[in-house]
Amino acid sequence: MSDFSGTTFDAVEVIRTKRDREELSDGAIDWVIDAYTRGAVADEQMAALAMAILLNGMSRREISTWTDAMIASGTRMSLPAEALRGRPTTDKHSTGGVGDKITLPLAPLVAACGAAVPQLSGRGLGHTGGTLDKLESIPGWRATLTHDEFLAQLGEVGAVVCAASDDLAPADKKLYRLRDVTGTVESIPLIASSIMSKKIAEGTAALVLDVKVGSGAFMKDADSARELARTMVALGSDHGVRTVALLTNMDTPLGLTAGNALEVRESVEVLSGGGPPDVVELTLTLAREMLAAAGLDGVDPADRLQDGSAMDVWRRMVRAQGGDPDAALPAARETSVVPAPADGVLVSLDAYAVGVAAWRLGAGRARKEDPVQAGAGVQMHAKPGAVLRGGEPLFTLHSDDPERFARAEEALVGAVTIAPEGSRPDLAPLVIDRVDG
Amino acid sequence: MSDFSGTTFDAVEVIRTKRDREELSDGAIDWVIDAYTRGAVADEQMAALAMAILLNGMSRREISTWTDAMIASGTRMSLPAEALRGRPTTDKHSTGGVGDKITLPLAPLVAACGAAVPQLSGRGLGHTGGTLDKLESIPGWRATLTHDEFLAQLGEVGAVVCAASDDLAPADKKLYRLRDVTGTVESIPLIASSIMSKKIAEGTAALVLDVKVGSGAFMKDADSARELARTMVALGSDHGVRTVALLTNMDTPLGLTAGNALEVRESVEVLSGGGPPDVVELTLTLAREMLAAAGLDGVDPADRLQDGSAMDVWRRMVRAQGGDPDAALPAARETSVVPAPADGVLVSLDAYAVGVAAWRLGAGRARKEDPVQAGAGVQMHAKPGAVLRGGEPLFTLHSDDPERFARAEEALVGAVTIAPEGSRPDLAPLVIDRVDG
Repeated sequence: MSDFSGTTFDAVEVIRTKRDREELSDGAIDWVIDAYTRGAVADEQMAALAMAILLNGMSRREISTWTDAMIASGTRMSLPAEALRGRPTTDKHSTGGVGDKITLPLAPLVAACGAAVPQLSGRGLGHTGGTLDKLESIPGWRATLTHDEFLAQLGEVGAVVCAASDDLAPADKKLYRLRDVTGTVESIPLIASSIMSKKIAEGTAALVLDVKVGSGAFMKDADSARELARTMVALGSDHGVRTVALLTNMDTPLGLTAGNALEVRESVEVLSGGGPPDVVELTLTLAREMLAAAGLDGVDPADRLQDGSAMDVWRRMVRAQGGDPDAALPAARETSVVPAPADGVLVSLDAYAVGVAAWRLGAGRARKEDPVQAGAGVQMHAKPGAVLRGGEPLFTLHSDDPERFARAEEALVGAVTIAPEGSRPDLAPLVIDRVDG
Repeated sequence: MSDFSGTTFDAVEVIRTKRDREELSDGAIDWVIDAYTRGAVADEQMAALAMAILLNGMSRREISTWTDAMIASGTRMSLPAEALRGRPTTDKHSTGGVGDKITLPLAPLVAACGAAVPQLSGRGLGHTGGTLDKLESIPGWRATLTHDEFLAQLGEVGAVVCAASDDLAPADKKLYRLRDVTGTVESIPLIASSIMSKKIAEGTAALVLDVKVGSGAFMKDADSARELARTMVALGSDHGVRTVALLTNMDTPLGLTAGNALEVRESVEVLSGGGPPDVVELTLTLAREMLAAAGLDGVDPADRLQDGSAMDVWRRMVRAQGGDPDAALPAARETSVVPAPADGVLVSLDAYAVGVAAWRLGAGRARKEDPVQAGAGVQMHAKPGAVLRGGEPLFTLHSDDPERFARAEEALVGAVTIAPEGSRPDLAPLVIDRVDG
């Protein structure tokens, strides 16, 4: 409780301000983030504040100050030009979806086009997978690098995908864990400042945001996704990062796999010049945006997929982090086939249902400290638009634990809609909208 | 995070339900209160839920279930008729105000009229004083009794004012402490369920609520106070307690003192047949309501003040808890007089300002673990309607620490308004409204 002196900030007063729909001053935001990082504001106080922010919102100024304060809670990385051998930096962030392995082919592809991709990434929680979990299915690969290793690899290989250091926006790490257990994840100001504080602190000069919309995404509708995109693009611009956002469809999973090693295999197919058309399309679209934002317009990334140079960077990137690009990827001990229920045309394939099934098979985790199974996941044998034959394989489920199959199948009940043969379903475009500064 | 099985409750799902403005099921409320009491729901989760309740409200059913769950977290006291020697039980609860010492004369007065008053009371926090803090200024008096001591005193003396045992609604104790530090005190559903869970668990058959309205109260306006009163009366009725609420004025402090020993002295004046008119009026009004709710209509409590029988009960009540009713009360080491700023008629005397001044002098505490000064407080030499002479004493400040006077005086700047001599100010009535089942 305040002593009514008004000379210092007080957690309860800050909470009450936002609770009562008033704006937080810059001083109050700086104080509360710093005090929370130091432990002087307790978890229960920050949880109450986060719920008040979720329900009452924040202004653009408040979000910008909040982001600055989270960056200032740690060290802003420097990426000196000489270490990068003249490569301009450009990065991508996805808000998370089912089967979203795009970073794996994208980072080496963009590096093969002459940029440096300094991607600090995360692990998965819930029904969406994490890029580090996927890469960790490669035998020997390690997510943790020192800053010197990170810089050296960025200059030599052009792409690094690794875990963020503990000193990158530590306030965000602490707050993210808290939001996860207190029902305060789904706040646009808190999501935007969480993502952007890390990306700005990482030091990239250009950034492309892939904001997912649909059943398998955090944002279920285009309006919310557009608001999140605009908020993040504004934050990037305010902080000197050239930022562009695409809104992309996440009603349907990306590609034909959801699971860790399964998705690495699919990514390698894309790097070999093949792979599912939607994964190739989104990889190339994002690559072009990243290169344009970095001022590298003269290169066509499609050529780099076909000529093997993106694959060369991938192999060097995996090796630089201790992985063996030629090693066999782990496979689940058991598989189970789910047949198509009827003849007809597949009209929709629900991303959320597939994400939950993959999670239940062991590909994801319910709590941060849970392990994941490298081989577990869902393999899809058809995507919307395909003609199905009843009884033929629709999904193959992969898991080390056969007792997981029943509950994964439950998640998939109702996941597909099938129209009579000869129907021509109206398929949604992959890229829904584009937001730039 | 839930495992999507839906077979058990999950803290995040419960928080999300209230966050998204849906009603909590009875099962969800029972679970979350029990799990919070056991420590299976964390403080940060309950803080987020409390903020969502504060901002999104609860239905009458939710509030009733919430109250039941808090009662069920501990033991509901039984007050067996044979132990009470035929006395019907009746109690009073005030939502807290400045100078509100009414319990001190009221409990022995109602006992002197033939009822049993089983009052479990609390300590003060912030600018409002606590009944136990006041009684503890009596040398030797102790707030803690065993259940057997409590029952014996209730039967023999007819009145007990003591601390609640740890087993009385422990969920409320834990939640109250949490709300205090998380800006979630000011929620009508949470205030109503907190007060009523303790009063219902205490076992009284009848209850009169004194809901304070005005600058010195939690409820600043009559509409909020009426909503709180109606919510609590409904809860009492739903739980078989005959409950009535009065809305009473707290724009002006009660009586002429705010402070612990100062208020005991004033209470003894009332029990001697004197004392400030507003304290006498409210004591008698509440006594009549308590007696009517207990079915004891034939007695006039005014007679019991005049004939000394209420004073006799007071003396026995103090003695039964180790106190010496004849001992000198502690006095502050220092005093300082604040003069009236001008000649004229005192129109208003702000309760909040006086409460803050008393607090700053040492009568109250900012944190639960702080000590209070028995002798500290504010003595008022005039109440609204009185004629002032500029330069004559308006307040006397009492404290052991003379360095506290300056900040107490600051709190009192602007606390009074004075009209020209001959004005007849429009004084607000003490009792604003009455709410019954």
